[in-house]
Parts: sequence; structure tokens; C-alpha cells
Amino acid sequence: MSTTPTTDSTHTPTIGVFDSGFGGLTVLRALVERMPRARYAFIGDTARLPYGSKSRRTIARYAVESARFLLKEQGAEFLVIACNTASALALDAIQDAVPVPVLGVIEPGAAAARAASQTNDVLVIATDATVHSHAYREACAHHGLQALEKACPLLVPLVEEGWTGQDATGHTVTEQVIRIYLDELNAAAAAAGMKADTLVLGCTHYPLLRPLFERAVPKGMRVIDSAESAAASAAAMLNGHAVGVDPLAAATHTEIRCFATDSVEKFERLGSRFLGRPVGDVELVDLGG
Amino acid sequence: MSTTPTTDSTHTPTIGVFDSGFGGLTVLRALVERMPRARYAFIGDTARLPYGSKSRRTIARYAVESARFLLKEQGAEFLVIACNTASALALDAIQDAVPVPVLGVIEPGAAAARAASQTNDVLVIATDATVHSHAYREACAHHGLQALEKACPLLVPLVEEGWTGQDATGHTVTEQVIRIYLDELNAAAAAAGMKADTLVLGCTHYPLLRPLFERAVPKGMRVIDSAESAAASAAAMLNGHAVGVDPLAAATHTEIRCFATDSVEKFERLGSRFLGRPVGDVELVDLGG
Repeated sequence: MSTTPTTDSTHTPTIGVFDSGFGGLTVLRALVERMPRARYAFIGDTARLPYGSKSRRTIARYAVESARFLLKEQGAEFLVIACNTASALALDAIQDAVPVPVLGVIEPGAAAARAASQTNDVLVIATDATVHSHAYREACAHHGLQALEKACPLLVPLVEEGWTGQDATGHTVTEQVIRIYLDELNAAAAAAGMKADTLVLGCTHYPLLRPLFERAVPKGMRVIDSAESAAASAAAMLNGHAVGVDPLAAATHTEIRCFATDSVEKFERLGSRFLGRPVGDVELVDLGG
Repeated sequence: MSTTPTTDSTHTPTIGVFDSGFGGLTVLRALVERMPRARYAFIGDTARLPYGSKSRRTIARYAVESARFLLKEQGAEFLVIACNTASALALDAIQDAVPVPVLGVIEPGAAAARAASQTNDVLVIATDATVHSHAYREACAHHGLQALEKACPLLVPLVEEGWTGQDATGHTVTEQVIRIYLDELNAAAAAAGMKADTLVLGCTHYPLLRPLFERAVPKGMRVIDSAESAAASAAAMLNGHAVGVDPLAAATHTEIRCFATDSVEKFERLGSRFLGRPVGDVELVDLGG
């Protein structure tokens, strides 16, 4: 006979998490830390990445296909768009297309910057595509913040090489790259007369560099991890929707299934570092297109 | 009245150059240096890059569309596939689809390594996609060479950041990254019992790092620039086809038109550094799909 309770007065929600690749696993990790007692279905649309170079219409079509997969095939009752490009360009389209709450990663990051900043001047680092969308600048402006955005294209490949400071190889390189980017960004902010006191990590790969950034920023500057901010917002929304999530429940109740639309080799090889636990078998799905 | 000759006993060929992006401009640069008296039409299929994550069939379809554009719209009589992924996966398909000679970048690189190596052991660095195709390993094997390939995913973004040693910013970072990659590669070669004496730069972005590589390799190791090798092969083939190319003709006779299938901003911003001269206006073309 089982010693675990067989009845449960609360409903275990299924949370769907979508990314164009596997970087969004950092968002899933933050979600699991806040809400371990949930089912998670993560899909990475790896066949069609990067979204950054595609049109808004194409990105919306792709993202809606993944969202529908999470709802129809996986029973998701809540969606987190763990992809900055899709959050910037397709959040409205996804919200229009599915009948469940949908959360992106950009608004929570801007809201967390609002809570952190005293000066109302914030810095945002992200990929080239996210910066060009100016989605963070606009989201910050809605919160009364002035944001200066900078593309840092070396950071994603540095993270994917594993040069994140956990071991010696490349550690010094990554520290130098971060220093160069921050020097350029702080100089641009100073030239614009800004007194920035908050740095938003606006890419799902960057949480793995958070300790390096926290050591590298000027004294007193707050570092906002948009994956963590998105997870906090998701927990608040889910509790608000009264779907019975218990953030204090045992982590053994976490159930995670990962899907990808193309070769799962890189996903399986690198994903565990992003998720902070083994990703297990990644299942291949065909969304067409 | 013009003082330039209005008749010309030699035919000025039109050479079509194709890449998935703009990295192949280093190949165009090498072609122009060898054959300044020619018309060049370059197309970067920027709307659909990167090819590296796509299937062989899809890459072949895309590459053939670009090849047909160069023939039908630009009158190309000779094609250079200045893209490692397309050379690895679609060269046969392009050769079958068009009635003009077609040259890739991989076979010339392997042939140059054959000419350079005394030990028959060579090292190849390239992108992840090129390494996974093992196209260089196979091409080298046809020349009796054993090749050890290594993916160096940080080098393309370092080049695109402009951290190539022409100025101070990032110079040290790039030197360190190159040293780490070469140390790993030389250690792997030694562990495999190889006595490598030749390094092939198997990516069209890498010619911009050639001076740094030449300083970083062990004493006596030859560095093969596959863009330069491809240009040498093209010149030999064109002279062999007696289309009247005069490599000694004045550079003022060079005519270059550049096309891209998507946003030309990055192409125009970075392209000149790859081409070694202004790329001028990049014309947008729609190849569909």
C-alpha cells in the first residue's frame, strides 16, 4: 500500500512553456523552483529557430502552432512564452488564439525593473533581435522607466560553450566579454545623462551568467533575471486564478516533459545545464512548416 | 570620346557567388583579388539563414533557387558556392540543376591542405554545422589526409562584433578564445596519435582572423584559408575554360552587385569588412518561401 496520499484536494495544473529553442529551460527551471507541484510541458521549436531573423507574421504563426500543441496535446491550462522574440512579437497573437492565460517574459522583467529602480533609468542586455524589437524599452516606458538596450551577441555562444564560470575553461574570457559589454553600455548611458541603477538580463540564456554579472556591475546596481521575474509573475497569476498550486509542495511532485521540433541532440546535451536537472528524453514532434 | 577601348578581344565573365549569409564576401574578396577583371553577382540568402540547422533537402532547394537567380537574372556563367554548409550538403544538387560550372569551398580547402601537409594529418576548424557534416574529413580522406575537425562557435560572433585585432577592443579576448580552441584541438590530435602540420580555416568568416591564427599556431604549422583556396581553384577553372579572364587587368574593371533576400542592414554594416571594400547598395530580392 502506498504511503503517499491518493487523494488531493487541490488540482495539479499543467503549465505549457514555449521557446524557439532550449534557452527557455531557464524559465522552466525558475517555474519549477517556485511551483514544484505541477506538470510542465516544454516545447522548443528547434526546427525553425532562430525566430530573431523572421517576420512578425511568421513568428506569430509558428508560436501559435506550438501553443496549440501545448493545449491540445499536452492539456496545458496556462502558457508561459519563454522566448524573448516571441514575447516581443507574438504575445497578442497567441493570447488571441488560445483560451488560457498566456504570460511572456518581457513584461515581468520590466515590472521587476520598476520595483528595483530608484532612479527610473535601467539598462537591458539581450540578443540582437530582442534589442531591435525595442520591446523592453516600450515595456519599461509603460512603467515610467527609461531603458537603454544593448545587444550582446557573444553571450549566447559563450553560454552554449559552457564557459559560464563553473569551471576554469573560458571563465576569464567570459568575464572580460561581460566587462567590455558593461563598460560600453555604462558609457553610453552616462553619455545619455542616465543614472542607471538596474540591469535587466533580457535573454533566456543569461541566467547562467547571473553570478558573473552580479560581480561585474557597478556597486549598488541591481541585476534583474527575467526568467526569475517571469516565474514570479506566473506563480502570482496561477494563485490568482485559484488553480490550487502549492509552491511549498514537495519537489517530487514535479513532472516535466520536453519536446522539440528538430534534432534533439543539442537540446539533450546542453538542456540539463539550463534546467538545473536532467532533461530526460526529449520527444520529437512535427508541427509541419 | 572615350579613351578606353570600346572593343575587347577577351570576354568579361560574370561570376555568381552564393552564400546563406554575407560571410562568403571573403570568398568574393579573394576572387576579386585574383580576377579583378570580371563582373560579380553575389547573393546572400539572409532570409533563410542559418542553413546549418536545416535538412539537406531544404538546403538544396534554397541553394538551387539562389543559383537559378544568379544564372537567369544576373547572367552568371560560373558559380562559386561560398557557403560551407551548402557546399557540404547541396553541391551535387546545384551542379545537377544548372548548366554552368559550379565550385564549392570545401574541395579547394582539402586540396590546399594536401599540397601543404607533409605529415598527412590536418586540423579543420569550422562551424558546428560544417563539422557535423564531416564534409572536410571526407574531402581530406579523398586526398589521403587524416583530418580532425573542431567546431568553434564563438568565432563567427567574435568576427561579427569586429573583435578581430584591427583595433584594441576585444582583441585580447579573441586571442584567448583562439588559444583555448587550438589547445583543445592540438590536445585531441595528440591523443589520437596525429602529427598535424596544417590547419584549415573552414568557415567563410575566419579569413578575418587569419593573422591571429598565424600567430597562434604551433611553429611550423601551415594555415589554409579556404576562401583563398576556393578563389585559386576558381581562377584555374576559369582559365581552363578559356573565358578570357585576365588576372592582371586593372581593378577598375571589377563590377560587383550584391543581393540579399532579407533585411540588408547587417549585410551593409558588416559586409565591407568582409569584402575589403564598400559593398555599396545591397539589393533586396524575393526568392519566395
